[in-house]
Amino acid sequence: MSEHATPSAPAAPPDLSESRFLRACRRQPVDAMPVWLMRQAGRYMSEYRALRERYGILDIIKAPELAREVTLQPLDAFDLDAAILFSDILLPLEVMGYDLAFVKGDGPVIGNPTRTLADVVRLKQPDLARDLGFTFEAIRLIREATDRRGIPLIGFAGAPFTLASYAVEGGGSKNRVLVKSLMWGQPETWHALMSQLADVTGHYLLMQAQAGAHALQVFDSWVGELSPDDYRRFVMPYTAQAIAIARGAGVPIIHFGTGTSSLLELMRDAGGDVIGVDWRTPLDVARQRLGDGVATQGNLDPVALFAPWESVRDQTRRILDSVRGQAGHIFNLGHGILPQTPVETVRRLVEFVHDDTRV
Amino acid sequence: MSEHATPSAPAAPPDLSESRFLRACRRQPVDAMPVWLMRQAGRYMSEYRALRERYGILDIIKAPELAREVTLQPLDAFDLDAAILFSDILLPLEVMGYDLAFVKGDGPVIGNPTRTLADVVRLKQPDLARDLGFTFEAIRLIREATDRRGIPLIGFAGAPFTLASYAVEGGGSKNRVLVKSLMWGQPETWHALMSQLADVTGHYLLMQAQAGAHALQVFDSWVGELSPDDYRRFVMPYTAQAIAIARGAGVPIIHFGTGTSSLLELMRDAGGDVIGVDWRTPLDVARQRLGDGVATQGNLDPVALFAPWESVRDQTRRILDSVRGQAGHIFNLGHGILPQTPVETVRRLVEFVHDDTRV
Repeated sequence: MSEHATPSAPAAPPDLSESRFLRACRRQPVDAMPVWLMRQAGRYMSEYRALRERYGILDIIKAPELAREVTLQPLDAFDLDAAILFSDILLPLEVMGYDLAFVKGDGPVIGNPTRTLADVVRLKQPDLARDLGFTFEAIRLIREATDRRGIPLIGFAGAPFTLASYAVEGGGSKNRVLVKSLMWGQPETWHALMSQLADVTGHYLLMQAQAGAHALQVFDSWVGELSPDDYRRFVMPYTAQAIAIARGAGVPIIHFGTGTSSLLELMRDAGGDVIGVDWRTPLDVARQRLGDGVATQGNLDPVALFAPWESVRDQTRRILDSVRGQAGHIFNLGHGILPQTPVETVRRLVEFVHDDTRV
Repeated sequence: MSEHATPSAPAAPPDLSESRFLRACRRQPVDAMPVWLMRQAGRYMSEYRALRERYGILDIIKAPELAREVTLQPLDAFDLDAAILFSDILLPLEVMGYDLAFVKGDGPVIGNPTRTLADVVRLKQPDLARDLGFTFEAIRLIREATDRRGIPLIGFAGAPFTLASYAVEGGGSKNRVLVKSLMWGQPETWHALMSQLADVTGHYLLMQAQAGAHALQVFDSWVGELSPDDYRRFVMPYTAQAIAIARGAGVPIIHFGTGTSSLLELMRDAGGDVIGVDWRTPLDVARQRLGDGVATQGNLDPVALFAPWESVRDQTRRILDSVRGQAGHIFNLGHGILPQTPVETVRRLVEFVHDDTRV
């Protein structure tokens, strides 16, 4: 036994509510624009690739210590203003009874996709606290480290449509024939599936906040494949349901999609304190359309990071210029960072966003 | 020798300028809305699949009699208001020196993609009349048949960006890292490539009209991957150049893309008498933004045709309702018809558009 043996009362967690990231979520002025990157823990980092040589992606996600290690890797490398839990949007599908695997080169594959009402009826009602306990434990572990650094932590989940897209197609899909056909052709099945996904997503988000996440991001990555009319009729009520449940936690919610130029106002109306904008919509146009009630996040093309630094810098500066002097924007890419992205460009990008917006 | 031996003077081709399709291109009232479908000659038709068992796609394209046969197949099956030449946008790349092959399952593959200025300098200046003579001969052959039916014929080409995307990536691509990197990182190479593609596309379109095409469609299928800023700086001048050359023929030009919710006004300004709109943008919104100077074409989701007829009908009617009583719209899908599309739904769709809009 050493002189450290006497247990001290656990220190109260630091109050990060005045951090750049959380202030920007509330549309309050900041000393420099906050920046984080979707998939900031990922294959572009050699530290991540090294760990992936020893562990599968699901192994890392389900082992809180490994999830913490990966979550922290980009914080060690770059001056980021938020951490995001290392996980995958498809984990809740697994605990609902879907056979989930990550197949090298093919991405996620679901062996028993939903095609009928009977398939939906057969889904399990998960006990999230138990079945996804590793997520909440990872959040608690990560918080110890991020609290020390004064960095807020983001939890996340897939939105009902994007989850349904995988659950019905059985994996990725080019045209989403199966999920749209089910949506248009089997309204009862669609309603049953989407209701259940909304409930699971909402509570999963809520419980991540209760476990310690300072903010929550809803990923509706593939919603841009829908017309506004279909979004309004078949998707928006369920996304709204999920976000309404998650709102119970009282933390900011980021609502993200790609290809959403025609959907931004509807996504805002479905819910969220921050609306994700991809590079296809100019940021100033998006902010004008969305109005003063929400913050924004985005919107550099992830492919831009493959260009020479001068081009990255000019493209970034045009985004920063379009919101200069305005509160309520979080710098990010318009979609997840790509595996081959040069690390040095990421480092310079984060530094440039801070330097160019410091007041 | 028979009584037909005495050659009669060739009959003057019928004047189709008052056809529904060409009147709609000019925003003039019509007796019923014209309809045709992108890729209307294709794998969803058993007649086409039967021919493809005997011939490769390039074999058909390069044999004018076969190209005619395939072009006419959908006209025999459905009451369509326009024919479109059976060909592929990548043929001009082949005669510029790219090694083009269609690999089963993988789509088009280019064996010697462009990555440097030296690669561009090495490209051939094609003699279009000679190298793509089969296209012009096919148009002349098809015209004999379509003239008899009173159906106008559309010629087409790929827009410079969409061609560059294949030429640089070497085939299809998910994120278009290579083509965008070249665009941002090698301005001189980009300019040299795009100038040459614009020139070839423009003249290829012009010569198709001179050979007998009544209208021309410019396919910029992948342009929706670009931000408006990048479109304006790196793409628009070259598309405008191609369309300006093609305009010399004096026939209507349809300017098409997908995912273009943020690009519609810029595409209109680049040129075209008709602007293609995909399902992501509501048609009434698109027409209001585009103004009275251009007609529109679209915009049913191709996946909608996999739904039960009642859903197809309702979705189609909502599109028709949004332009009811207005001139200058051509009904089409928002992108090419998909291989597994039920033929009976196509037949009912074409019939419904006519019946529901007949004045």
